[in-house]
Amino acid sequence: MKLTLAGGVVRGGRQARERFYDARGYGRVVSGDLELAPVEAAHILSRGDVETIRDADSGERLDFRGLLTSDAVSEIDVLVYKDLRDRGFYLSPAREGWVADPAGADFLVYPRGNGPWDDEIAYRVRAISEREDVPARELGDTVLAVVDEESSITYLESDRPEIEGSTAFDLPEGVAADLLGDRVLVWEPPAELYEQAFYGQPLDEESGTPLQVSLVEAAALARRGILDVDGGEQAVIERGREVEGDRFDRRLAVYRALRDRNVVPKTGFKFGADFRTYADVEDVENLGHSELLVRVLPADHTFSPRDLALDVRLAHGVRKRMVFALVAEGDIEWLSVSRLTP
Amino acid sequence: MKLTLAGGVVRGGRQARERFYDARGYGRVVSGDLELAPVEAAHILSRGDVETIRDADSGERLDFRGLLTSDAVSEIDVLVYKDLRDRGFYLSPAREGWVADPAGADFLVYPRGNGPWDDEIAYRVRAISEREDVPARELGDTVLAVVDEESSITYLESDRPEIEGSTAFDLPEGVAADLLGDRVLVWEPPAELYEQAFYGQPLDEESGTPLQVSLVEAAALARRGILDVDGGEQAVIERGREVEGDRFDRRLAVYRALRDRNVVPKTGFKFGADFRTYADVEDVENLGHSELLVRVLPADHTFSPRDLALDVRLAHGVRKRMVFALVAEGDIEWLSVSRLTP
Repeated sequence: MKLTLAGGVVRGGRQARERFYDARGYGRVVSGDLELAPVEAAHILSRGDVETIRDADSGERLDFRGLLTSDAVSEIDVLVYKDLRDRGFYLSPAREGWVADPAGADFLVYPRGNGPWDDEIAYRVRAISEREDVPARELGDTVLAVVDEESSITYLESDRPEIEGSTAFDLPEGVAADLLGDRVLVWEPPAELYEQAFYGQPLDEESGTPLQVSLVEAAALARRGILDVDGGEQAVIERGREVEGDRFDRRLAVYRALRDRNVVPKTGFKFGADFRTYADVEDVENLGHSELLVRVLPADHTFSPRDLALDVRLAHGVRKRMVFALVAEGDIEWLSVSRLTP
Repeated sequence: MKLTLAGGVVRGGRQARERFYDARGYGRVVSGDLELAPVEAAHILSRGDVETIRDADSGERLDFRGLLTSDAVSEIDVLVYKDLRDRGFYLSPAREGWVADPAGADFLVYPRGNGPWDDEIAYRVRAISEREDVPARELGDTVLAVVDEESSITYLESDRPEIEGSTAFDLPEGVAADLLGDRVLVWEPPAELYEQAFYGQPLDEESGTPLQVSLVEAAALARRGILDVDGGEQAVIERGREVEGDRFDRRLAVYRALRDRNVVPKTGFKFGADFRTYADVEDVENLGHSELLVRVLPADHTFSPRDLALDVRLAHGVRKRMVFALVAEGDIEWLSVSRLTP
């Protein structure tokens, strides 16, 4: 079985095509012959299906070790390719001209039982080292296959979810409140402010007063005329910027967007996030489990895979969905990331 | 009951002393009279034990709201003080001259049933807002009481642990290995390298070969003469710096220090940490649960309480202890942080 590497492609004849493409979903067919990406050839070599391939440039024969230590393949790609094959998938390298829509992916993975001769795609996979940062904007429809330094692979699926809840309430206007250093106190809160709308946290649980309201909550309530703070909404926002900088404006934008969607955001501090959210609050006495953990980030944020793994792992452990709110000028994009077992 | 605020101290007579110090552990006694810190007076006012105190500067009477919105107390301190009293503790504000060793703490908390008339201290508590960063150097013997934006309090205990394990093995020297882009491959590894010493991860589980070794593992092994890589230890370190910058040197120092203590560090990527560790590996077939999650940081690192909460929560969820390895020139300090319920 003769396979030859030349110009970044490994080529074989009709017999190779029958054995590798027809029977086992490797490569693609060009004029009845076989073309393989080097990562596919590396996999074939690693299995011992073929002992060596010929390197047309050097005239030498390359075994698995020879190919892996050459510049023709990335070890990251080889590891992810092998892992997906071991899990029972056929997959195609997402090369320009080889597949219909290669952008942003390294591999197109077919549903189990399907192959490159079918149209259906199960996952668009991007293979990266744990040391390679990933811009948030590039996530949303791909699966990240992150190879850690010990060569284990974590699959992270990303999506652009719709966020929507059904929390409803009516609140009176003009409730007096004091702005302190880092929060707002409402000395005579209407009961529904906490009990139905789930704003704030009572200092004294029994009497329910005073109600301690966070700066984001207070700014949102002041804008709607519900809280009456000296200096109004603007005073609260300025205090927020003093204690938190630019981040405050981003967090407030996300807080408001969640409330606009009838979702209740509460602090996510204990989970290391900005907010945890409740989609449907009827009253605080009968509060369900919060569904999302939300981390607020600027839209041009770049993730370190390790930080992403930390957030996703924690959210999974507390049975919540990890959502990133990416904030650009006046616009919020929602990105969910979760662990996937392909 | 007359209480007067002047010069940052609230003073009362003998009767106030009997009622608040003798019976309930507030304040201190000076010439038979009572002195309270404003935070203690705020707590007494919030309970309604006294309706108002007199402000000697303005001549006005302050109720709880008046004192809380003045500059005399921090809301953060008031919230933490109240929470600890509600949990059944007596505590003293750590003011210079009021207690023996106030440095680094806001409150000294006595064991339940004890008070300021006893010597024993249960916790040295520092009260901070979630927005206040904390230098790593300041942790180790205090409890952080972090007040989040919704006024809930998370207690984080810190300690300086001894790290020691009992993993023992012998390895042959001069094993050939190839340096790839982001890892090292050992094509004919001696079995004990993985199976007893738990270095690396086999690419093919059945044959155990090749063994994939991370750059920190490879650098440590190359220094000890066990792995023979082209360019030696230095080539591995240079590759590490290329892919990870300064962080590589810190991680390698911690990796070596852990191995010197007979502890096995493996990647902590899935937990968002640098390493997870096993104190006692006999063979990989019978591996126990890893005990620590280790995050490597420069010694001058400053924690955001939110990041700290994230790490500690995750470690708790996977039943491991969170340890920070603080690396200065040639020196490593170990800092453990865990959640405390006082």
